[in-house]
Amino acid sequence: MPLTDHDWFTEVCDEAGSAFSLRITKKLYTERTRYQTIEVFETSHFGNLLTLDGFVMLSARDNFIYHEMMTHPALYTHPNPKRVLVIGGGDCGCLREVLRHSGVVSAELVELDERVTRISERFFPELCAANDDPRAGLQFTDGVAWVERSEAGAYDVIIVDSTDPIGQAARLFQAPFYASCRRALGDAGVLVVQSESPLIHAELIQAIRAEMAAAGFQQVSTLHFPQCTYPSGWWSATLAGGPGAHTDFREAAAREQSFATRYYNADIHRAALAQPSFMQDRKPQ
Amino acid sequence: MPLTDHDWFTEVCDEAGSAFSLRITKKLYTERTRYQTIEVFETSHFGNLLTLDGFVMLSARDNFIYHEMMTHPALYTHPNPKRVLVIGGGDCGCLREVLRHSGVVSAELVELDERVTRISERFFPELCAANDDPRAGLQFTDGVAWVERSEAGAYDVIIVDSTDPIGQAARLFQAPFYASCRRALGDAGVLVVQSESPLIHAELIQAIRAEMAAAGFQQVSTLHFPQCTYPSGWWSATLAGGPGAHTDFREAAAREQSFATRYYNADIHRAALAQPSFMQDRKPQ
Repeated sequence: MPLTDHDWFTEVCDEAGSAFSLRITKKLYTERTRYQTIEVFETSHFGNLLTLDGFVMLSARDNFIYHEMMTHPALYTHPNPKRVLVIGGGDCGCLREVLRHSGVVSAELVELDERVTRISERFFPELCAANDDPRAGLQFTDGVAWVERSEAGAYDVIIVDSTDPIGQAARLFQAPFYASCRRALGDAGVLVVQSESPLIHAELIQAIRAEMAAAGFQQVSTLHFPQCTYPSGWWSATLAGGPGAHTDFREAAAREQSFATRYYNADIHRAALAQPSFMQDRKPQ
Repeated sequence: MPLTDHDWFTEVCDEAGSAFSLRITKKLYTERTRYQTIEVFETSHFGNLLTLDGFVMLSARDNFIYHEMMTHPALYTHPNPKRVLVIGGGDCGCLREVLRHSGVVSAELVELDERVTRISERFFPELCAANDDPRAGLQFTDGVAWVERSEAGAYDVIIVDSTDPIGQAARLFQAPFYASCRRALGDAGVLVVQSESPLIHAELIQAIRAEMAAAGFQQVSTLHFPQCTYPSGWWSATLAGGPGAHTDFREAAAREQSFATRYYNADIHRAALAQPSFMQDRKPQ
């Protein structure tokens, strides 16, 4: 193990032979839930840190980039998003960003482990600031089954804010789940999933794109953004739309956005869609 | 110290309370030069790793992003770059990228520590592949003095591929050096400097921009790109031009670039110029 000192939290990324550490000033909380071990640390420079089974979920300092990029690009791609579903995302950061869009009528969060949300309410209250919004609905159950049971065309946007593709979360990266999403979204809906690191997981990103195509999403695009506390510091989200989805985003609306963001803006949205040369060479199957 | 196991190289970033580690399979070389301690490691997933005084300079796996972004945006911003100067950059990766541009007539590298170059030739021969190009000139001396002694208008592009702003390198981040560059570039020339992490060093980036403006560079723009092995994984370069410099880059030429790149392309160039909202709020002084 690289970081043995109790003053540091370290996450090792085996598939990259790398590790990232944050200096810990206090361990705030530990709980072994039915699904996982949740820990909260106070760090010296990144505010509070939430980990699940030893993997960083978020820090107070840099989660704004992830949550803004997992939500606003999808919502500005759909022509008129009213009904939004978040799968996972128990820290409620995505839910909060979704509810900044005044046109949204309902935003449902479906998280497997209720304890993630309850612990986030305590240690990351800023992320949970919109949980009492009358448009918000919190469900603590299996997201895959939830989407399977949804009516066709029930949602305009589905956001998959998952952990890495291991254990329970592996199903969230596969064609059967994407096919359920495709049905629940109808032809015009937009799906967005967190899709790991372009540097470390380029093969996985291509697999996700292929699974999406196999599930009937004709339009697939990968967005790039920095995320300091995830392996390599470079992360991605992959957007998918059916045959009736817009091929581009509502740039004029994004330029006139009525709410404050710290990372996202229309220029950043356009920029995030640019593909490095090494990814242009890999064609989706 | 976070990483005590000899199987890992760890760099602590004190100002962020973070650390980054790579798994080491072999220590290949150590030398204490007149200026610094140079070490080379073989890593499990990132190829060879070069460190100076314990700070990562580059890995074989991800240096392509840094070297491409430190060179091609500047060369595609100048209308017709013929005479290029690289300050620092002893690994010769920037020099190699500069020489991919067929219009370049001379590319001079001015590196303080010749040992960095000699060790790079041995352990990173791919970066030094252009060192024998007849257009290349290698000088091992002080870069600040070199620019001061240069004739006015001697260069079209100056690239400052420096270490962090501590010790000898601190002078490379200050107005007197930028004023020398301004004079050596003339009104149409382009300066580009590595400018640290937008997440961790936002104040420094603003200071660099202000020092550039104070030195007579009217046009200043900061480019963003991922760099896994540097603190936060998110890095920047800042471009500066005098009153006769182009305000935009030669996008058509970049789209038709005649050489292969792994990260850079015209879309990525445009994208790298997009500023996150939190940086748009910080106006240069």
